[in-house]
Amino acid sequence: MSTKNIPYKIYLEEDEMPKAWYNVRADMVNKPAPLLNPQTLKPATLEELSQVFCEELAKQELDDTTAYIPIPQEILDFYKMYRPAPLVRAYCLEKKLGTPAKIYYKFEGNNTSGSHKLNSAIAQAYYAKKQGLKGVTTETGAGQWGTALSMACAYLDLECKVYMVKVSYEQKPFRREVMRTYGASVTPSPSMETEVGRKINAEFPGTNGSLGCAISEAVEAASKDENYRYVLGSVMNQVLLHQSIIGLETKAALEKYDIKPDIIIGCAGGGSNLGGLISPFVGQKLRGEADMRIIAVEPASCPSLTRGSYVYDFCDTGKVCPLQKMYTLGSGFMPASSHAGGLRYHGMSSVVSQLYHDGLMEAVSVEQTSVFAAATEFAKVEGILPAPESSHAIRVAIDEAMKCKETGEEKVIVFGLTGTGYFDMYAYQRFNDGQMGDYIPTDEEIAASLAKTPVVE
Amino acid sequence: MSTKNIPYKIYLEEDEMPKAWYNVRADMVNKPAPLLNPQTLKPATLEELSQVFCEELAKQELDDTTAYIPIPQEILDFYKMYRPAPLVRAYCLEKKLGTPAKIYYKFEGNNTSGSHKLNSAIAQAYYAKKQGLKGVTTETGAGQWGTALSMACAYLDLECKVYMVKVSYEQKPFRREVMRTYGASVTPSPSMETEVGRKINAEFPGTNGSLGCAISEAVEAASKDENYRYVLGSVMNQVLLHQSIIGLETKAALEKYDIKPDIIIGCAGGGSNLGGLISPFVGQKLRGEADMRIIAVEPASCPSLTRGSYVYDFCDTGKVCPLQKMYTLGSGFMPASSHAGGLRYHGMSSVVSQLYHDGLMEAVSVEQTSVFAAATEFAKVEGILPAPESSHAIRVAIDEAMKCKETGEEKVIVFGLTGTGYFDMYAYQRFNDGQMGDYIPTDEEIAASLAKTPVVE
Repeated sequence: MSTKNIPYKIYLEEDEMPKAWYNVRADMVNKPAPLLNPQTLKPATLEELSQVFCEELAKQELDDTTAYIPIPQEILDFYKMYRPAPLVRAYCLEKKLGTPAKIYYKFEGNNTSGSHKLNSAIAQAYYAKKQGLKGVTTETGAGQWGTALSMACAYLDLECKVYMVKVSYEQKPFRREVMRTYGASVTPSPSMETEVGRKINAEFPGTNGSLGCAISEAVEAASKDENYRYVLGSVMNQVLLHQSIIGLETKAALEKYDIKPDIIIGCAGGGSNLGGLISPFVGQKLRGEADMRIIAVEPASCPSLTRGSYVYDFCDTGKVCPLQKMYTLGSGFMPASSHAGGLRYHGMSSVVSQLYHDGLMEAVSVEQTSVFAAATEFAKVEGILPAPESSHAIRVAIDEAMKCKETGEEKVIVFGLTGTGYFDMYAYQRFNDGQMGDYIPTDEEIAASLAKTPVVE
Repeated sequence: MSTKNIPYKIYLEEDEMPKAWYNVRADMVNKPAPLLNPQTLKPATLEELSQVFCEELAKQELDDTTAYIPIPQEILDFYKMYRPAPLVRAYCLEKKLGTPAKIYYKFEGNNTSGSHKLNSAIAQAYYAKKQGLKGVTTETGAGQWGTALSMACAYLDLECKVYMVKVSYEQKPFRREVMRTYGASVTPSPSMETEVGRKINAEFPGTNGSLGCAISEAVEAASKDENYRYVLGSVMNQVLLHQSIIGLETKAALEKYDIKPDIIIGCAGGGSNLGGLISPFVGQKLRGEADMRIIAVEPASCPSLTRGSYVYDFCDTGKVCPLQKMYTLGSGFMPASSHAGGLRYHGMSSVVSQLYHDGLMEAVSVEQTSVFAAATEFAKVEGILPAPESSHAIRVAIDEAMKCKETGEEKVIVFGLTGTGYFDMYAYQRFNDGQMGDYIPTDEEIAASLAKTPVVE
């Protein structure tokens, strides 16, 4: 196919933007296993989930039959503020690599949260507002999710309470300040505001905190005020549903120019971006309408898909959230302090896990120094300084494009560029100074962590 | 006019993008006064300017008769990577303000340099490359210009040497790191690498540096290598010419929807963004084709247009660059350390100065706390966290929209949103903590500074 008329950036028109989210579970033959109540270890009911999540979100969490769920008008209006995200033809990267491959990336970084997280933040905040709640609580590590939620809450005039892992709170003061600018209250975790926080502070004086602790604090804070609910930025089915906007726009943009993807690549932490990007394409595969390779890229330091087990496990270290059947390294797994904080998660979305288990997609792990090398190469020719997380996808996109150079194949490679790295310059500095290392857990470390994982038949 | 069909964001199609820059000087009845050679105080010749700038850029600097100068294909290709910039209808801001005004902003922040500076950086780097040069030198204060130039040079495989004011180098390590990631060498100024740097270090041990000193170092470094030239990001005619892409796109986007602007607003430091935004509209005014108010917004701490004198002055503190006739506070003026580093310039583009002198535009100054209040209000409803510089324009756009609320007028207000504030979070922190002050120079301070300004008839 001639590429003569394909612009550098494909923007959908406003009236071409998706009006409904796509729920891939509806088309899956093997549905993801149900969530389990952490007390009873029985499938969680709508009623039980509604104590943690907003009712509408709990419904979305459990709905595995409705293929298309209409996006409320208020959310569509918010999406119009920063969407459609462009599908960019990486002409400059192709030229630099000298590859016959056609490379495209869906760029989700053109908003102040700096990532795709805003797509679900606005949805979750909207349903909280609609339910008449006063506010929401959440945790944040690297800070992208907390920023996105702060923005969504500011727009809807909803209170937003973020528990930020203490070490991030101190080392990423600018992320914290963006959230404060959007009116969120940001508390370093563990704090003295919650029981669990006080307990941890007493037990481990001077601790840096952890995501597990911050989750527990956020859940406790929400549980103590009936006008609050807890919200979260990845892993859950509802999040993948909202993030399907990424894949739907990508698919529409490709179809507008009659482009058929051969390979789709996304980075994978909890699976929110990857699941959102691939959902509509997986739907095509499931319905036998099209076929393509789908590749999840995870960090070698935290390889849940490539080296984890497919079992029931807790989503959080504090063990207060429902259990999910997923590829996991064990909820107590402590990944090395990599610079892609958004990918340091022990488990994986149950939808992505099931798709991987069923052979509908592949997975590969990459080391961070090779990821930053790809990030820098990309930045120099495509202009955008990518987030460390997104750069995992860049690494594999470049690798696949170089294979095409060897074989001469003109494959169409599409990858998700989830965000920008403007708040990750410390990591780039380590790389620029040659001080970045790689860490790969041993089989023994993973086995020891998994030994503590609940086994549920 | 009905606004029903106007989308949130107007993107030009790739083939609607401008193919030539617009040189407003060609339509000006009163041309800007010529540059003066700092040694002879006579009009600078092409030959003299070519010792400092690339030949093609020196020609552009002096050309006040050619209305349209074609943009080379290589630059058009680079522009396609991050342009067209969207013209955004601020529906959410309008709703929040309850104003009948229609507010639009041209958003230049969707690229990694975070501002409009890239528009001229790529042009200057291109002509340097075309002339067969090995590299360019420049100075940077806040860091946006240095970042933009680093990106352009990385793309063209040109060396880039940035002298960064020492206090910024230390306080904005992440800006510095972005430049390094793009392969630039970044030296804190004053350094021990240049004569002028060594001299200043000897004279003022432990000095924080200044823009004036960094310029002198960059000029000296370029002058010592015939394969290098010095480039700069604002004030000069050539820069305004390149930045006319902003105004041309804005005008094309407005015309696409038959929108006629009543007021155009831009922040003004050296004048690069403002001059670029307004040029095509001023052209319409000069040719009698249309009329509208044009407002330059400057910081109350550095009010060159509103409180300076229209005289010949040096563009740099080191007094090595040509003199310009412009509104100036005196080249030795030391503005208070405001948080809008990009607007802390003692003078103003000679084009903008002449237009202001001829009554073709207005100017207003605003205090920084009111600017940050506007920035925060804007961020919460429009999603984008703006740069402090850009927020000066937001302040006045909101003020004008509120006047419309009083009068009921449905004016069309267009302002330039030059960039994002992701590297300015320290300033937001000061504001969020209620620790930001305002500073307005006294008449005596300005008079004392101006007393040292050269007077050339």
